[in-house]
Parts: sequence; structure tokens; C-alpha cells
Amino acid sequence: MSDTVAVLGGTGALGRGLALRLARAGRAVVVGSRTAQRGEEVAAEFRAAIGPGTRIDGARNEEAAAAAEIVLLATPWEPSGEALTGLASTLAGRLVVSCINPLGFDARGPFGLDVPEGSAAEHVAGLLAGSRVTAAFHHLSAPSLADLDKDLSDEDVLVCGDDPDARAEVVRLAEAVTGRPGIDVGPLRQARQLEPFTAVLIAVNKRYRTRSGLALAHVDRGAWRP
Amino acid sequence: MSDTVAVLGGTGALGRGLALRLARAGRAVVVGSRTAQRGEEVAAEFRAAIGPGTRIDGARNEEAAAAAEIVLLATPWEPSGEALTGLASTLAGRLVVSCINPLGFDARGPFGLDVPEGSAAEHVAGLLAGSRVTAAFHHLSAPSLADLDKDLSDEDVLVCGDDPDARAEVVRLAEAVTGRPGIDVGPLRQARQLEPFTAVLIAVNKRYRTRSGLALAHVDRGAWRP
Repeated sequence: MSDTVAVLGGTGALGRGLALRLARAGRAVVVGSRTAQRGEEVAAEFRAAIGPGTRIDGARNEEAAAAAEIVLLATPWEPSGEALTGLASTLAGRLVVSCINPLGFDARGPFGLDVPEGSAAEHVAGLLAGSRVTAAFHHLSAPSLADLDKDLSDEDVLVCGDDPDARAEVVRLAEAVTGRPGIDVGPLRQARQLEPFTAVLIAVNKRYRTRSGLALAHVDRGAWRP
Repeated sequence: MSDTVAVLGGTGALGRGLALRLARAGRAVVVGSRTAQRGEEVAAEFRAAIGPGTRIDGARNEEAAAAAEIVLLATPWEPSGEALTGLASTLAGRLVVSCINPLGFDARGPFGLDVPEGSAAEHVAGLLAGSRVTAAFHHLSAPSLADLDKDLSDEDVLVCGDDPDARAEVVRLAEAVTGRPGIDVGPLRQARQLEPFTAVLIAVNKRYRTRSGLALAHVDRGAWRP
């Protein structure tokens, strides 16, 4: 079980891309969805895409959460927290990675929504008091993740969380997704910066007709002092 | 005059670095400070560092603002807005670039301060209703700017503002600082994302013992559609 990663909201655009890349990297993946059937459909599609030996299954979000030690939240931003609250006991003790971007769009483009707790990740941490909550994977483009020929090793996954061991696990997990380890950016409240920065990337995508990604210059991972 | 750039707060760490790089690129620069003497001292130091032909002078902030069509605000975050309010008539009609990062620091590291207007740049725009206000240069490391041997062409300057022509001017100005043009990220409200992101870079600097910078992957400047 410790090797398994669940992706809740794994049939959405970002969740699909993360599940696909993790499975290709050899991780056991459970695609969580609102219905088991939808999760299994996506899992079957990915098994076919990646080929023999792929360890990927589909399940209802609740069952996916129960099956994995590491649980990615690729669900839409849900201020009510209703769905997550129902999972709190299942997720207790597990490593939860919020990938949630609370974004709005208007005539002037994308923008970060106001979140009373400061960020979606802090909102999640408030709902899942028994879990180790981190945040990461906000800035990867869903279509780029879905395109397995696309090299993402020039993009950085920024990881925050209040538990240093949990951050270190997600830093390693990022390597399975992009080909290089994530970057530890410190406490969970850094999610206040990470989440809405996606609005900057989306604005750039429109102006430069691209799928931009985030990278940090001048970071030597060997110098990391967690 | 149209070639001249004033750097208000040009004797602070970020302001010094921007003034030095702009002067080296051949731009005429006025280093603004609270006293003319302090501004002139820094200008003389930079003339000596760069060599003959350097066009750099020092002046009080008020006089620096009056001497240039492009005015960089590298001043500390000042919620009262007192100093800027006094410059509003001088700055009317000019292109103002806010480089201000409203950051706080506590036991858990750096964080973005709450700004009622959303960002320092929007605060500035409220004070300088007659100016073309943009924001840029938040993420460059002051010590790296000051080290003229340091190649910054792998970092990106993100530029926002509500006037497309003003953004385009600052995109070009960025090339004089780093060696490559800035990236247009859209309306001024994007400063809400740009300013506090500096807290992420500072946190990374501590954890990886570096001077990190921001870069965007997969952006082809030739595809720019402002």
C-alpha cells in the first residue's frame, strides 16, 4: 500500500495528467472519481496508453483515499469543504497533497479567488486536522501532462507544507511526474503564493500562445537543507 | 529626456542593482535618494565601476522623478503613501514601474503582507492617478544585480499593467537589465501574484543556499500578442 498514490478528482484535466504520469513512472495509482465507473474508465484508458505492467485502477474517491498512503487532491476548489469533510477520518494519518487552484475568470482574465484561510491548502488542512497536508503541482499544464511525449523536466514543482518529512516525500514524488525532484519552499502558507500564481501562467499562455510552466533559476538540489 | 530612467530609492539594495545594470546597458540613469548627496555618492561609485561614458547622476527623489520619462519605484513599501503623494503632480503622464514588494518576516520565514488595494502596485496606481503605472522587477536578487559578472539572462522579468503600451515599454526595459526582454503577464492586478512570490524565492534561497530567480518555461517571445 505504501507505494500507492490516489488521485482524487483523477478524471479532471489536472488529475488525469498527474495519474497518467505517475503510472508511467511505475507508481501504483488509483484514479478516484465521483463514481467507480468513471474512475475505472479512465484507468482502463491509461492502461491501454502506457501498456503492460501498468498498475492503475479506478475507484470512487472514498475508496481511492482508503487505498493509498499518498493522496493527491486534484478536485475543483470547493469552499464548502463538504466532500473533503466526509473523507477526514479516511485520510487521517495520510499524506495529502493539495493541487487545488482557487481561480476566477472575468473579462480581464484569470485571477486568484479570495480564500478566508489564505489558500485552498490551508482550508484543506483545517478540514483534515489528522492528515499531513502539503501543496504542490499547481503550475503544470494539464494538456502538457497528458502528452507523454512532452518533456517537463525543465519545469519545477514547488512544494510546501508544515511537516518537513511530508515535504520531502512530495519533493521525491514530483520527480515521478516531471523527471526532476520538486523544490521545497517551506511552510504551508506559501500556498498563498503558489495557488494564484497559476493565474499568471494562464495569462501568459494566452499572450504567447503556449503552455508555459514555472521554473526557478540557480537552484542546486544538492544544496538542499530541509 | 525620453532615454532617461530615474530609480527612486536608488540607494537601496534593489534600486542600486537596477540603476547599475541600466547604466551599464547605456541608459541615462538618475539615482534618486532622500538627499541629493546620497544619490550622487552612489552615482559616482557606479561611474567608477562601469567606466568612461557612463551616464549616471544622483539627485533627490523629487528631482530624479522630474528628470525622467520612466521612473522606477524601488522604494520600501510605505502603506501611508506619504512620499509618493507628494510626487503625484511631478509623475503625472510618466511611466511608473513599481518594484515594491510588501513582505513581512517572522519565525516561519518570509510572507506577503496584506495590502488593502490588493498589491503595492495597485496602491501606487491609486496615489498616482495621472501616471501610467506598471509593476516589474520584483524577483531579481539585489546581490546578483550588483554583481556585474553575474549572467541574469536565464531569469524572467514579469511585467504587468493596465496600459498595453506601457507594458511593452517595460518589457523592452527589462532587456537592458537582464539581457532578455520581460514577459507581459497582463493587467496590473497580477501584481497581487508577482509581489508576494518574492517570499517563495527568499525561502528557497535559505533552503538551497542560493540566490534563486524566477523563469518561465516554454515562452517564445516571438509569439507575443499584447
